[in-house]
Amino acid sequence: MTKISWPAGTLLAPVPPALISCGSVEKPNVMTAAWTGIICSEPVLTYVSIRPSRYSHEIISENKQFVINIPNLALAKATDFCGVKSGRNVNKFEACNITAAPCSKVKAPQIAEAPISLECEVLEIKSYGTHDMFLAKVLAVNVDDKYLNEKGALSLEKAGLLAYAHGFYYTLGRQIGKFGFSVEKTKTIKKRNSRLKNEKKHTKK
Amino acid sequence: MTKISWPAGTLLAPVPPALISCGSVEKPNVMTAAWTGIICSEPVLTYVSIRPSRYSHEIISENKQFVINIPNLALAKATDFCGVKSGRNVNKFEACNITAAPCSKVKAPQIAEAPISLECEVLEIKSYGTHDMFLAKVLAVNVDDKYLNEKGALSLEKAGLLAYAHGFYYTLGRQIGKFGFSVEKTKTIKKRNSRLKNEKKHTKK
Repeated sequence: MTKISWPAGTLLAPVPPALISCGSVEKPNVMTAAWTGIICSEPVLTYVSIRPSRYSHEIISENKQFVINIPNLALAKATDFCGVKSGRNVNKFEACNITAAPCSKVKAPQIAEAPISLECEVLEIKSYGTHDMFLAKVLAVNVDDKYLNEKGALSLEKAGLLAYAHGFYYTLGRQIGKFGFSVEKTKTIKKRNSRLKNEKKHTKK
Repeated sequence: MTKISWPAGTLLAPVPPALISCGSVEKPNVMTAAWTGIICSEPVLTYVSIRPSRYSHEIISENKQFVINIPNLALAKATDFCGVKSGRNVNKFEACNITAAPCSKVKAPQIAEAPISLECEVLEIKSYGTHDMFLAKVLAVNVDDKYLNEKGALSLEKAGLLAYAHGFYYTLGRQIGKFGFSVEKTKTIKKRNSRLKNEKKHTKK
């Protein structure tokens, strides 16, 4: 293994190829952005970085609201299309056959078909160069109930989320462990396996 | 499909379970952070959000440098371990059998075994609540040369990167398309397929 050094680049991966929706249910727009992330857990702060030339930049600057929609495999083509085309020239909701649905806390629409949608309110806009960063507070999270298990917990592995890495879209692959798996005691693992076995028995009844 | 509304949460996925290394080659530390992303393409700006209680917070606040290392499947256990344990009590490089290697632009070490490492210089530290955001400029990117193809381009799909989503680690799955695939003309696709076929022939010779 030898590592070679390249000039600065945006080679952070994988990142979410997020569908950023804005405007209103009546006049929605959507663009794809991979420059997004969580900044703080409490309060829940996030951001999306957008080029000033983009139509969504204009809308979000005015309305101070947007929604981060997390796409799955069924939305792969729409995700790519919404990152290539401009809402100035095409109604992307119509073109991609996706639905602008109302949110609970913001006027910006969510994409009904996305497994997860985060309602965001802009706190600050910062200009950094090619991109402006929209720092935002997450006000609510909308989850498709078909990914909830019988206890009401989210089984996200069923959603078939997409990832973006170095210019390519990927599916998420195999689940290889839960946070903390590297330090889990054998006893804890055995206990959980036995519990899961019991739960399965009860479900079968 | 029905979407239910939950209170605000950090449900953005997938995110990179990045190994953030800091300190020096002689006295390195490393922690795992998923609250990271690209903020601007030019200049290349990134960030990592860290709780003030963390040992790495102390080191990076002082040195103003860190490295974002992107882990692959071989580093899965180390990635989890470095997110659970504190460098105050354990030498994580020794415990995980990973190597602190010198960087080209910063004194902070990179993890030799990581497929990609981004050398970063802190521009600003912002307190937002549970997490402080370290806004940083990417100075150089180090890439393991075993993932370069014969033309010197990075074939990242070979690296076996990890993703983090809602408390679980995943592999990246199937590559489903390149940026722009949704608007690609049939002619372009045919042309590329024919080129790739020719390249394969030449490689076999």
